[in-house]
Amino acid sequence: MKRVFNFSAGPAVLPEEVLKEAANEMLNYKGIGMSVMEMSHRSKEFEEILESAKSDLSDLLKISSDYEIVFIQGGASSVFSMVPLNFSENKISDYILTGQWAQKAYDEATRYTKANIIASSKDENYSYIPDCTNLTVTKNADYVYICENNTIYGTKFKTLPDTKGKPLIADLSSCILSEPMDVEKYAMFFAGAQKNIGPAGVTLAVINKELLKRTPLAETPTMMRFSTHVKANSLYNTPPTYGIYLCGKVFKWLKKEGGLSVMKEKNERKASLLYDYLDESTLFKGTVKREDRSLMNAPFITGTKELDEKFIQEAKEAGLVNLKGHRSVGGMRASIYNAMPLEGVETLVEFMKKFERENR
Amino acid sequence: MKRVFNFSAGPAVLPEEVLKEAANEMLNYKGIGMSVMEMSHRSKEFEEILESAKSDLSDLLKISSDYEIVFIQGGASSVFSMVPLNFSENKISDYILTGQWAQKAYDEATRYTKANIIASSKDENYSYIPDCTNLTVTKNADYVYICENNTIYGTKFKTLPDTKGKPLIADLSSCILSEPMDVEKYAMFFAGAQKNIGPAGVTLAVINKELLKRTPLAETPTMMRFSTHVKANSLYNTPPTYGIYLCGKVFKWLKKEGGLSVMKEKNERKASLLYDYLDESTLFKGTVKREDRSLMNAPFITGTKELDEKFIQEAKEAGLVNLKGHRSVGGMRASIYNAMPLEGVETLVEFMKKFERENR
Repeated sequence: MKRVFNFSAGPAVLPEEVLKEAANEMLNYKGIGMSVMEMSHRSKEFEEILESAKSDLSDLLKISSDYEIVFIQGGASSVFSMVPLNFSENKISDYILTGQWAQKAYDEATRYTKANIIASSKDENYSYIPDCTNLTVTKNADYVYICENNTIYGTKFKTLPDTKGKPLIADLSSCILSEPMDVEKYAMFFAGAQKNIGPAGVTLAVINKELLKRTPLAETPTMMRFSTHVKANSLYNTPPTYGIYLCGKVFKWLKKEGGLSVMKEKNERKASLLYDYLDESTLFKGTVKREDRSLMNAPFITGTKELDEKFIQEAKEAGLVNLKGHRSVGGMRASIYNAMPLEGVETLVEFMKKFERENR
Repeated sequence: MKRVFNFSAGPAVLPEEVLKEAANEMLNYKGIGMSVMEMSHRSKEFEEILESAKSDLSDLLKISSDYEIVFIQGGASSVFSMVPLNFSENKISDYILTGQWAQKAYDEATRYTKANIIASSKDENYSYIPDCTNLTVTKNADYVYICENNTIYGTKFKTLPDTKGKPLIADLSSCILSEPMDVEKYAMFFAGAQKNIGPAGVTLAVINKELLKRTPLAETPTMMRFSTHVKANSLYNTPPTYGIYLCGKVFKWLKKEGGLSVMKEKNERKASLLYDYLDESTLFKGTVKREDRSLMNAPFITGTKELDEKFIQEAKEAGLVNLKGHRSVGGMRASIYNAMPLEGVETLVEFMKKFERENR
């Protein structure tokens, strides 16, 4: 049976090769007579899976030994609480509002700290990234927080904000591994796996050891202390073993594909194909300020709800699925993560052209 | 390649049938052209998966509409914090100590409440269940907490404690679904999936609606509020979709097997086979007081470390794996969850008999 082109914002398309390997190993992993799912997280085999995942990720992102890598649970939404709980010294924090997820992180910070909004693009429904070249960073702020790529709105920070020396903490859920990054610029970053890393249920956090020296607030639950997971090498309690195994497979696939420079080229080619067409189309229109466009999530509209719906329906029938935009933006959204092949975007653009001809 | 008999305490053996189905559906779930892993958690298909899982679980455990069912993340260890954070009114709680997991739950409660230990079997390394027929329950205690089956020590409450009218909250991680239960006796119960429900990374919680009326402590993170997950029907953020899908398959398998009365019979037959042999053996010896023996986890010893190690090694070579006991008890432990076939226990007992003859 044919697979579709799946433009879901997350959980999202995974490399077919990874899924095939997982299916083949489902009942018997490397001849040990059991599934990875059935394996003790304290077993030699699982330790190898975990260590390979960590070392392949370090290779891909060039993570130095100044950072700790942990795989945790609860999604980015849990990290929204963990950031203020773990990294508050003065209980003052600065947030840049670029969408719903940054807002939720900010809301959670207000529970524990005096959280400030030091820049925002709420005035234009988050369709751009605010100028962050000369921010008024709060004097004793414990950190500056951003959501680097905004899945819902399709924006991305192309330049990181000047935090005036404060630690930068970033949610990279929808852009991690899409291109090379300079890890040293971040005190901490994290990502839910279900977009560019693996299946839902795993959250990746990479934290500078200096930041980890901060004392969590007294009320921080044990499982929400980063130190709990760092000290136990992500094995304090049973981790989402099968999810980590799949993330590891995705890391190996990325290395085989040529690493993040190659992924960046491929992703830019895919995104250009779509954005160039959006710029020349007389029917479809991108919703984001050009220079802030995401490489991963491209929202677009026709201008009328009826045509949007017609497009989504006909695209689905043509095997191009999950193109419905988020309700906050409307219209359509094509999420074109690493695992979306060029062919998928080519097929989409061809389909859009045909739709444009038929509905002009 | 042959599958082994896997006696792991968790993550643990899963029904082969479930794994086969999952492998077959890995690249294309029911002809929709994508894996369950790639599916939006807001899709019609995933909603069906979630609703079937909930309704099959309700059928199996006979859960009435007085209870809410949620699938969350973070393992039982996260629930250890969530219980005092969500269900404290007087900030007084009563715990019964029957092992390491109850201890961890208690420790977490001391962070937020005046937690009392009202019974304990620590004096004899948790090898029995304390008498709970006439407990001194604290006057204003918000709840009484137990770990009903103690994976490490191999004990189980055969009668629930008399809580003198206080709500009973129980960790059922290693005994849930092993036999029918009277849900109405609990204000709340929960379980990490990785023993008798599905893969690691999913936690099941079943909570009485009366208990849910309590106001969480102000410091409770959004993701640690049960109300967050109840209100959103486990879809507040992206849940561990693939894990829930597999749990759902296990529920269907249990129904097909005949439900929990049949499982109880099967589990009793498996456990009797092993315990009867332990009682007659002159080499192997169970470590638990007979009347408190778990149906799921059976620890046993030979009496010498050398023989224990030899047994574990030779058993492994014979395809009987993960029999090493927890370091707190030593020796061996056979975890014989629902998915362990009778044949596995028969093979184990035959192997033990042979080992006894050879090493008497």
